[in-house]
Amino acid sequence: MERKVRVGLIGLGTVGRGVARLLLERSSKLSRGRGFTLQLVRIADLDITTSRGIDLPREILTTDAYRIINDSDISIVIELIGGIEPARTYILRTLEKGKGVVTANKALLSQHGEELLETAQKNGAQLFFEASVCGGIPIIRILREGLVANRIERLYGILNGTTNYILTRMTREESSFGEALRQAQQRGYAETDPTLDISGQDAAQKLSILLRVGFNASIQMGDIFCEGIENIALQDIEYARELGYTIKLLAIAKRLDNRIEARVHPVLIPSGTLLADVKDEFNSVELTGDAVGTQIFYGKGAGEMPTASAVVADVIEIAQQTIQKSLPTENQMPPADERLTLLPMEEVETPYYFRFTVIDEPGVLAEIARLLAVEGMSIASVIQKERRQGGTVPIVMMTHRARERAMCRTISNIDQLPVVKAPTQVIRVEEV
Amino acid sequence: MERKVRVGLIGLGTVGRGVARLLLERSSKLSRGRGFTLQLVRIADLDITTSRGIDLPREILTTDAYRIINDSDISIVIELIGGIEPARTYILRTLEKGKGVVTANKALLSQHGEELLETAQKNGAQLFFEASVCGGIPIIRILREGLVANRIERLYGILNGTTNYILTRMTREESSFGEALRQAQQRGYAETDPTLDISGQDAAQKLSILLRVGFNASIQMGDIFCEGIENIALQDIEYARELGYTIKLLAIAKRLDNRIEARVHPVLIPSGTLLADVKDEFNSVELTGDAVGTQIFYGKGAGEMPTASAVVADVIEIAQQTIQKSLPTENQMPPADERLTLLPMEEVETPYYFRFTVIDEPGVLAEIARLLAVEGMSIASVIQKERRQGGTVPIVMMTHRARERAMCRTISNIDQLPVVKAPTQVIRVEEV
Repeated sequence: MERKVRVGLIGLGTVGRGVARLLLERSSKLSRGRGFTLQLVRIADLDITTSRGIDLPREILTTDAYRIINDSDISIVIELIGGIEPARTYILRTLEKGKGVVTANKALLSQHGEELLETAQKNGAQLFFEASVCGGIPIIRILREGLVANRIERLYGILNGTTNYILTRMTREESSFGEALRQAQQRGYAETDPTLDISGQDAAQKLSILLRVGFNASIQMGDIFCEGIENIALQDIEYARELGYTIKLLAIAKRLDNRIEARVHPVLIPSGTLLADVKDEFNSVELTGDAVGTQIFYGKGAGEMPTASAVVADVIEIAQQTIQKSLPTENQMPPADERLTLLPMEEVETPYYFRFTVIDEPGVLAEIARLLAVEGMSIASVIQKERRQGGTVPIVMMTHRARERAMCRTISNIDQLPVVKAPTQVIRVEEV
Repeated sequence: MERKVRVGLIGLGTVGRGVARLLLERSSKLSRGRGFTLQLVRIADLDITTSRGIDLPREILTTDAYRIINDSDISIVIELIGGIEPARTYILRTLEKGKGVVTANKALLSQHGEELLETAQKNGAQLFFEASVCGGIPIIRILREGLVANRIERLYGILNGTTNYILTRMTREESSFGEALRQAQQRGYAETDPTLDISGQDAAQKLSILLRVGFNASIQMGDIFCEGIENIALQDIEYARELGYTIKLLAIAKRLDNRIEARVHPVLIPSGTLLADVKDEFNSVELTGDAVGTQIFYGKGAGEMPTASAVVADVIEIAQQTIQKSLPTENQMPPADERLTLLPMEEVETPYYFRFTVIDEPGVLAEIARLLAVEGMSIASVIQKERRQGGTVPIVMMTHRARERAMCRTISNIDQLPVVKAPTQVIRVEEV
């Protein structure tokens, strides 16, 4: 009964090393009672000479990925090189051979997901990607299987550990953005070029994948409104706290009949909520399903072993289906619902936090309030404190819900006032 | 390609109604892209005349469960009658026919789980039970599939919504236990006879299931140390708060080499942690895996639709395997690891919270401290306040870690002192 399922790994970086470790050291535990044994038979990487601190049989290393893709004994291929090419071609060629693919490649999935899924479907092959979102948290499986009976109505995600670490340092230690970023880099939570994380693009890629899996909506990462945390000032964090809020970078998705609201940006969320309490490099997803209500999932979103754990779980699931000789095309993800379209950002409605930088003279607040009223925006609270050096003073304001379009017009008008001395800080508010 | 998978439901209570609703109203969505259609063809209940506020075709109702079990067109049977018999016999007969079974029956699983799993295994049948623990949170699937590459080291669970609701009311509104229980009953969170919940037995049943799935350990509910919340006084909650702790009823499991620590009782956990912030009737599970680190899952642990959502997810998974004509015995849960044995409670080590009720006279604290020292117990902090009416005074004490055996001897000695006027309150502490 005991069949061997042979696995090849393309990409021996940090996560690749963790995967190799789990597959080599834990193969008997992973196979226990399942009727198959996993065997990692080949690893491809451009660099096969540098030691990774893990004992790999020399003969399984190769620099040629096609020695894995074209090996008819290998039935599951793990792609961990990241980026678009050659990863895309590798995966397509593998799926065309009817082999299972496990990938953590969020950039590729968020841009070419449909192509990959269709190729898998057409060839009766499996494509799994648990590790592409939230590392070790099995959020894809939760959506695809655990909550399958639900219509997912809403999703809030802290999907990027780097930005959450930075915002946590700013909130708890009153570090500036720059100091917190340097700390993150020193501790290995941020890359040397942190743009992808800081700008929110990494979170938007992940949101695109969650939209496909959870909402059945095919929305490319590039279409998702995305704003980073680079302009969050320490004073915004302090004003937010005073108002009872915490600033987080959230990925947000909501279903409004056949419109999908999807966006990534910093938000003020009420302090004391579970999401506001997600600290440091941790990730968290809050889901609302029409049957289950609200659920929250929390854990490490990155790192060698958490991510490797997700990859290996996918390998096992494909291995199980492989030895069962499943009917080819029946276990795929349902096709995307084409009626679902993205709500344009200018129609999104939220409350707002504004920080105006104005000259402290009579009538300024009245003028600002008048321009808000013109666009039908209504003020919920105002903080104005003592004068600061340089003659300007911050006025902080929270509004009631308004459309993005009205907000943009209002702020554009306000920023043209001669008394306004710097572009107004705008942060959206979410009453999670 | 479109095959019908016929489903029978035994037990049309609250959850049964939710399941019927999802299967009847959502069958096309649930089948989308899967190559099969689910069809609920028969429902058995002793009472088929009372209206459930759901439109059921008259002809699918029966009072005879065997019209489902013996119907060769039905390939999946959902058991939702609860209790040991006749549920056990129904499930065994169904599995013996090689049909899939979905159940939410925690009492049965925690007592006869191995018998059911073995029968499933022997007959190449599937037995799924996501709904038996934490309602809509897919914790069984997370453990069986999502975290399969991990060795689970530790689990903390708020597994019972009733007790969490009561403790929340006591903590937030300073209600007494009795008042909070009445509130829970009025709001439908507690049964008329709340013993199973209050005593911790419901949580112990669920812990037994999680031990089997997460730790591969076969430990019957009756062997798990279990203490309820009925003796938690409002003053304990207040002292705990003063010390920086919150009182929760936790299910706790830890792996110590081949010993498993498993227990259910009230604990003081640090305030401000995510577990301490789980409010009202919500459930939560905190897991630590050796690869993923610590993860937390949170959601509604009971109720018609959350639980029905879990049942239907299981039905879909079995249906998928049914149409794939899986090799019969390959997709089962691995057999329990027989080397794993339960650590006897007297060997468990924790810090403790004590509340002594003593006569306020000189030397009392010295005498108590002496008896603690005799058993090697070391004091971490003490609160002693003003005298109360009746001449007795509470002394509250937190200790460092000590063995349960030493604690029991110490408290037995202390409670024999003439100055001690009531049995000492003992609550264990967990530094989650």
